[in-house]
Amino acid sequence: MKIGLDIMGGDFAPEATVLGAIESRKVLPADVELVLIGDQDKIVEILNREKCDISQFQIVHASDVIEMGEHPAKAFKAKPNSSVAVGFGLLHKGLIDGFASAGNTGAMLVGAMYTVKAISGIIRPCIGSYVPTDINKYALLLDVGLNPDSRPDVLYQYGILGKIYAESVMGITNPRIGLVNIGSEKEKGNMVAQSTHELMEDSKDFNFVGNVEGNELFGDDKADVFVCDGFVGNVILKEAEGFYKLAQRRKIDDEFFEMFNFEHYGGTPVLGINKPVIIGHGISNVPAIKNMILQTQKVIEGNLVDKIKEAFN
Amino acid sequence: MKIGLDIMGGDFAPEATVLGAIESRKVLPADVELVLIGDQDKIVEILNREKCDISQFQIVHASDVIEMGEHPAKAFKAKPNSSVAVGFGLLHKGLIDGFASAGNTGAMLVGAMYTVKAISGIIRPCIGSYVPTDINKYALLLDVGLNPDSRPDVLYQYGILGKIYAESVMGITNPRIGLVNIGSEKEKGNMVAQSTHELMEDSKDFNFVGNVEGNELFGDDKADVFVCDGFVGNVILKEAEGFYKLAQRRKIDDEFFEMFNFEHYGGTPVLGINKPVIIGHGISNVPAIKNMILQTQKVIEGNLVDKIKEAFN
Repeated sequence: MKIGLDIMGGDFAPEATVLGAIESRKVLPADVELVLIGDQDKIVEILNREKCDISQFQIVHASDVIEMGEHPAKAFKAKPNSSVAVGFGLLHKGLIDGFASAGNTGAMLVGAMYTVKAISGIIRPCIGSYVPTDINKYALLLDVGLNPDSRPDVLYQYGILGKIYAESVMGITNPRIGLVNIGSEKEKGNMVAQSTHELMEDSKDFNFVGNVEGNELFGDDKADVFVCDGFVGNVILKEAEGFYKLAQRRKIDDEFFEMFNFEHYGGTPVLGINKPVIIGHGISNVPAIKNMILQTQKVIEGNLVDKIKEAFN
Repeated sequence: MKIGLDIMGGDFAPEATVLGAIESRKVLPADVELVLIGDQDKIVEILNREKCDISQFQIVHASDVIEMGEHPAKAFKAKPNSSVAVGFGLLHKGLIDGFASAGNTGAMLVGAMYTVKAISGIIRPCIGSYVPTDINKYALLLDVGLNPDSRPDVLYQYGILGKIYAESVMGITNPRIGLVNIGSEKEKGNMVAQSTHELMEDSKDFNFVGNVEGNELFGDDKADVFVCDGFVGNVILKEAEGFYKLAQRRKIDDEFFEMFNFEHYGGTPVLGINKPVIIGHGISNVPAIKNMILQTQKVIEGNLVDKIKEAFN
């Protein structure tokens, strides 16, 4: 297995990315190769400084960088030698089995859509995020921002995507799929949520456990996958981030609140595309990069993409 | 001024409601009359037990109760002698100046719409809730559940309603109106949010401060009023409630997190109707009931309804 890492992506790159790669190397099995994509000189410099055996890594030079503030589509097209573009090139040609980056999220999504492309049958790929539902227990929330307007048939597909992810990457048997809504009854919610509930309640594709309200998302263990449109999912995720930051600012030291720290899970999978792609938080530090790499390994190992292809073909 | 209180409404009624009335009486000015609406015998029994001077209150007997689980519209129609129906009758006839209840929310809304009715020019009345933005500072979030699908022109009106509420009840000069969205740029969000942003950015009706993201709602003091549709607002509010409960469960004792305790502000105003109506949380205890009554006093005192009528006529 070959995991590609964008060394130039993220606010603390290339320092945090190279150090994260070194940390992940310590725990990855020997048959997993780590491909560092970025400025070769800088990569070698940091590896040498850390007295790290360079032969542990494969390095692919990329002379350019897509900065965090750049326009995603324009930058991706204008910078074919950027680490993001080079990474997607390797992924598309099968020279790496998965690609992870904490860089410009928009450019990562553009790259995913234009090179790797959506799996046939998937109306809209989406992005998921882990949210804690109990001590040491996470659920997958999706979509968290790719599709702010999601039709009921798209939301239904999120249910299938979430089920396959929960099974193959998170190791959950018969995962419970919940629909984010504003009441427990099926008649509750906006028009999209009502129609989605109707589609889901008869589902033979997954184990639908009904509506989940905002107060039941965290700490209640109501479902393993929470489905909603990308507008609602993004607000939910950022509100949780806000509470985590608030807790930090208030110097609240708590095991459960600490689970909202994105460092622990590393990144956000893009679901419904032909290859494994993981997008990390821009502010990723060393442990976050390490965990993003380990998450990419799990996604590849779990054959997520093949399982999604099977389900939709 | 006469404030009507539904004594039978709420999980801990009539005990918590009568005790809350007694507590509020201690701080209300002498010219504010408190009208207790409900089972007269029970009210008198509790007042006597508490060795409370009954002449401090006006009591209006209501022989029936709409229970929490009942179908709102059916129950409101079928039980004309319920405390909710009697309260709205008094409000409609001008025998009380405002009505507060912690009872069946749906029945309260049905009562508001069918007796008091929407102010002419208001497309959709909505319900707001206080959310903390800094220590001892609250913003108003609306809509929190009345209209899960809200068109851009409806959201625009929420901005006006929020502005007037913030000015006249919360005492905020030139309140900042923010639109809940999933990015700071105007192009961000779902179709409704994009169109609403366009309407709001040219507004001369209020001080629009742009988009507010989920992580900026609490603790960042970005706006005095957060506008969103009732689906998103309900999820936001319940997620915050969830975090508050989580903090309690984790025995986190913090001044800011304590501000999420609904007891402190008491209730949720129905905005855009012809009379002041405040709906309390079903689990309201004595301090929550007391604060709901004081909030009703503020709404009446601030001439909220007249100011909204002026703005829309």
